[in-house]
Amino acid sequence: MKKGELFSRRNLDFLLFETHKISELLGHSPYQAHDRETIGLALDTAADIAERHMKPAFVDSDRNPPFIRDGQVIVHPVTHAFYHSFSESGLLASTFPESLGGMQLPRSVFAAIDFIIGSAHNGFQMYTSLAVSASRLIESFGSQDQKDLYLPRLLSGDWAATMCLTESQAGSSLSDITTTAFLQPDGFYKIKGQKIFISAGDHDITENILHLVLARIEGAPKGVKGLSLFTVPKKWLGDSGELTDNDITSVGIFHKMGQQSTPALHLEFGAGNHCRGQLIGEPNQGLKYMFQMMNSSRLAVGLAGGYIASAAYYTSLQYARERIQGRNLEEKNPLSEPVPIISHPDVRRLLFKQKAFTEACLSLVIQCQLYLDRLQTGVPGEEKKKYEQLLELMTPMVKVYGSEEGNDSVHAGLQVLGGYGYTRDFILEQLARDVRILSIYEGTTAIQGQSLLGRQILSGDGSVLDLWQMETGQDLGMASAHPDLKPYVLNLSENITGFISVSRELIRKARETSAVPALADASLFVEWFGLLNAGWQWIKQAYTALVALEKAVSPEDRIFYRSKLETMKYFFHYELPRTQALLQRIGEAAPITLFPPDEILI
Amino acid sequence: MKKGELFSRRNLDFLLFETHKISELLGHSPYQAHDRETIGLALDTAADIAERHMKPAFVDSDRNPPFIRDGQVIVHPVTHAFYHSFSESGLLASTFPESLGGMQLPRSVFAAIDFIIGSAHNGFQMYTSLAVSASRLIESFGSQDQKDLYLPRLLSGDWAATMCLTESQAGSSLSDITTTAFLQPDGFYKIKGQKIFISAGDHDITENILHLVLARIEGAPKGVKGLSLFTVPKKWLGDSGELTDNDITSVGIFHKMGQQSTPALHLEFGAGNHCRGQLIGEPNQGLKYMFQMMNSSRLAVGLAGGYIASAAYYTSLQYARERIQGRNLEEKNPLSEPVPIISHPDVRRLLFKQKAFTEACLSLVIQCQLYLDRLQTGVPGEEKKKYEQLLELMTPMVKVYGSEEGNDSVHAGLQVLGGYGYTRDFILEQLARDVRILSIYEGTTAIQGQSLLGRQILSGDGSVLDLWQMETGQDLGMASAHPDLKPYVLNLSENITGFISVSRELIRKARETSAVPALADASLFVEWFGLLNAGWQWIKQAYTALVALEKAVSPEDRIFYRSKLETMKYFFHYELPRTQALLQRIGEAAPITLFPPDEILI
Repeated sequence: MKKGELFSRRNLDFLLFETHKISELLGHSPYQAHDRETIGLALDTAADIAERHMKPAFVDSDRNPPFIRDGQVIVHPVTHAFYHSFSESGLLASTFPESLGGMQLPRSVFAAIDFIIGSAHNGFQMYTSLAVSASRLIESFGSQDQKDLYLPRLLSGDWAATMCLTESQAGSSLSDITTTAFLQPDGFYKIKGQKIFISAGDHDITENILHLVLARIEGAPKGVKGLSLFTVPKKWLGDSGELTDNDITSVGIFHKMGQQSTPALHLEFGAGNHCRGQLIGEPNQGLKYMFQMMNSSRLAVGLAGGYIASAAYYTSLQYARERIQGRNLEEKNPLSEPVPIISHPDVRRLLFKQKAFTEACLSLVIQCQLYLDRLQTGVPGEEKKKYEQLLELMTPMVKVYGSEEGNDSVHAGLQVLGGYGYTRDFILEQLARDVRILSIYEGTTAIQGQSLLGRQILSGDGSVLDLWQMETGQDLGMASAHPDLKPYVLNLSENITGFISVSRELIRKARETSAVPALADASLFVEWFGLLNAGWQWIKQAYTALVALEKAVSPEDRIFYRSKLETMKYFFHYELPRTQALLQRIGEAAPITLFPPDEILI
Repeated sequence: MKKGELFSRRNLDFLLFETHKISELLGHSPYQAHDRETIGLALDTAADIAERHMKPAFVDSDRNPPFIRDGQVIVHPVTHAFYHSFSESGLLASTFPESLGGMQLPRSVFAAIDFIIGSAHNGFQMYTSLAVSASRLIESFGSQDQKDLYLPRLLSGDWAATMCLTESQAGSSLSDITTTAFLQPDGFYKIKGQKIFISAGDHDITENILHLVLARIEGAPKGVKGLSLFTVPKKWLGDSGELTDNDITSVGIFHKMGQQSTPALHLEFGAGNHCRGQLIGEPNQGLKYMFQMMNSSRLAVGLAGGYIASAAYYTSLQYARERIQGRNLEEKNPLSEPVPIISHPDVRRLLFKQKAFTEACLSLVIQCQLYLDRLQTGVPGEEKKKYEQLLELMTPMVKVYGSEEGNDSVHAGLQVLGGYGYTRDFILEQLARDVRILSIYEGTTAIQGQSLLGRQILSGDGSVLDLWQMETGQDLGMASAHPDLKPYVLNLSENITGFISVSRELIRKARETSAVPALADASLFVEWFGLLNAGWQWIKQAYTALVALEKAVSPEDRIFYRSKLETMKYFFHYELPRTQALLQRIGEAAPITLFPPDEILI
């Protein structure tokens, strides 16, 4: 690692090419133009942008957050430089078809690109992520007109995008959305309503912003079944290319604990009664369309936990190597020379904790993005269904694992720096403020828990668990042949068996009596599932490393692979045992939090 | 609870008078002037000051941190109002003898006072805490001259105090302190050196500040054995009452993530070569004296975790009662009326988590402060030794439990508020920034772990563990007679047995081979011990509540006691099971973090 580097390129290559073997994918359309070299170039470009435009502005854009001037949100000028260089480099459109100006790059590779830029600046990455997933939504569900209007402009970086779900009175409860769309004689809709916490909801980076707005067509059914999705641009494009204001007001910017560089807006649509939007797809199908973008965002948030933790890990690792303090535990002479703090086992524990999380998180996201990539290669129906089901199952878990454990990981990094970690002299305190939002937005941990346990598991027959167990079983089976790995594989397999058996019991109880006691602990259930998935990724990485170690010659390679093995061991000895408490708690399914009346909480 | 209240007075009374039965203590000198009424008045006074001077300024003093003007640190004006009202009310000196203008109030009661003011504003409390513990140090170890000079002025609030340990090159490693004291012909010492992270190291609240400075007398041995302690006032008092500058420079204020209202200073002593200090006690005994203040501060930091968590708990509880969102899990009709979020089990879990921590933490601190109180009553030698040993054993654990679990507790509070919790619209984000320092200062978690496992346990024969087991056993034995509590007592007792047995094994290994593998996981060891102690306090509270419930008539009392029982259950079902992973990890004592060379961490 070079000094000041916030991610490991070697690790990205290891995960993409060695662990997840994306070269196998590259043989298939639409990825056939790519090989290790083109992918390397894309990663280099991302690293270059990160180094030039993002890292230098990370602190300054925190200290100088966006503000509103004359109704227009003004963001840090470096955001402009980043956004334009990212789009001009072709990375913004890179996962889209060549016909749309894209490179047909796999999404798993784009996750690596996101990881690189996000480790340099986790705030800017929001802008590009929104443009990409909004484009994908339009590509999937938009009319030809909408595609023609928006896709070229979004993918070129000329326009930006947002997703507008949350309303003040509704919060996570989308069924209570009240923003209303009134059909007009010309087929457009008048939009009226207010949205809050809209990330990048306004800015001066691009000349226009496409808002994707969930709203209820006048007279539509209540609940989520009455929600429709609309394209509501900040400005309408006239026939002669002029842009006309569309009556969207920036009511205010929320002042946040972190993520200061990306404004979270309170927006009002139609204060002047002339905000116009256009329906996407069919009426009352809005949530279904929006789920594509939400799921994509959930994976993105999981990844964000990983790249924020990566920045924290490498910063604290460098500090631990350079900071001289104290003596080794076995040193009895207090007058001996002090040592770098990386020699202290507790500092190493805090470093291993971060490394174990960061690399498992990234590996898990790549695992999921590869399912999405394979779905693009025209796989047969049965395989398609498998990938879709695994994605549904794993997405909420990735979101929670990345955000919750990411928070703990960054705190471990801050702790390595001691008092300095708490000051603005280092980026750790900023990373700790930034990472904290992740377990809240795109659906809180509780919402993800309900989604995993309620929607994916308790409402089914458990067959999705068999699918997941078979999927992990392939990797575990291969690894168990190696004597060094066998005890770890056995440990994880027993853990998985325990998880499946408790899950089946919960399904039975949900059918026979009620799902409620199980759902009460859904947040813990998703935590449990996350640890098991991280364990799976560690076995997968350790096996890859062991096999490679047998042939590795260069000292750098040997250290890299050994490092993977030691980190796997750390994970199994320090992190995986936490599943015991979760097994016990969820196995009980005792209604501790359900039973007592509200008054008991005093 | 009244709206906006950040602590429960009912709970303070419960812990002091019912659980810990301090009335038994009040019969003994020096506390005989006190009864439930005088103590009630002291708590009322604290609550009044908190309400008038602290709570209103909590946010503003975060937004307007201290700054240096013409070499003088200027703090938020409200800090002055608070400090003067706290000292004028008599609370500052309240635990000191009447001869010093005090009230001879037990320290356990002062912990409750601290809890009240700290929940309103956790920054201001630092100033008073330093004055109290510095006074206690002077009272214990100072010369008559030092007592006469400093005690009246500190206890009246005219002067303030600091503790100056940390140096940039030494950090936690006090043996590397280089600040030097040069003996002068007049018996005073010239002090030269720099100290960093000095809390309240300068301010304009009081006309003078007493710095207690650890330094090395010229020619003294290296290591901690050569450290002496000095009184180094910001200004010297002349014979005619004039104050003369003592050559202490405020080099800079650290910019912190939180705790903005209390400046952390970089101080230079003797830049102009005329900073004078006076030795406390004997040369080279400084660390021994300072340990009194450090241990007092460690208990104070543990308590701080509790009161910051209390502010977070009651803020999130009120929000959960008022915020309407979503529907009950068992509600199938999405069109039904939405409910307050306190109805959602996951929100209740987050609330119970906070309550279980806050009330266990406060109870633990009172348990320890009562040992200190009993030591003042002239107990016989054997009992004295017992309290001293228990204090030594429990102090590092209280510091870690309060700071680490306090951090998690506040994050649970923030999570209850969802997106709003991340914004400056509520105090949760500020509390989350504030609480983060606790696991760093007054000795990091790693330092506390070494102190508990290395100094208290591995270097002894384990008899201190027997003492602790007997101490907990008294409460557990009584509680086990109650059938409702029996299973919980059994659970905790088994846990304790496992802990003692692993500890004994570590002692054996430390003697026969090396203490190093055990010490490598000392941070986890102290976490484990913290959970067991919290479990003990929950059994103690639950037993008190159960007995009281049998006689309680008023609906408020009945709800209060039932609430204690439910929270105890929460603790046993959700928190205590975490000990399983710790038992496994520490039982292994496998050198996972110890073994690999530094290069492996990449």
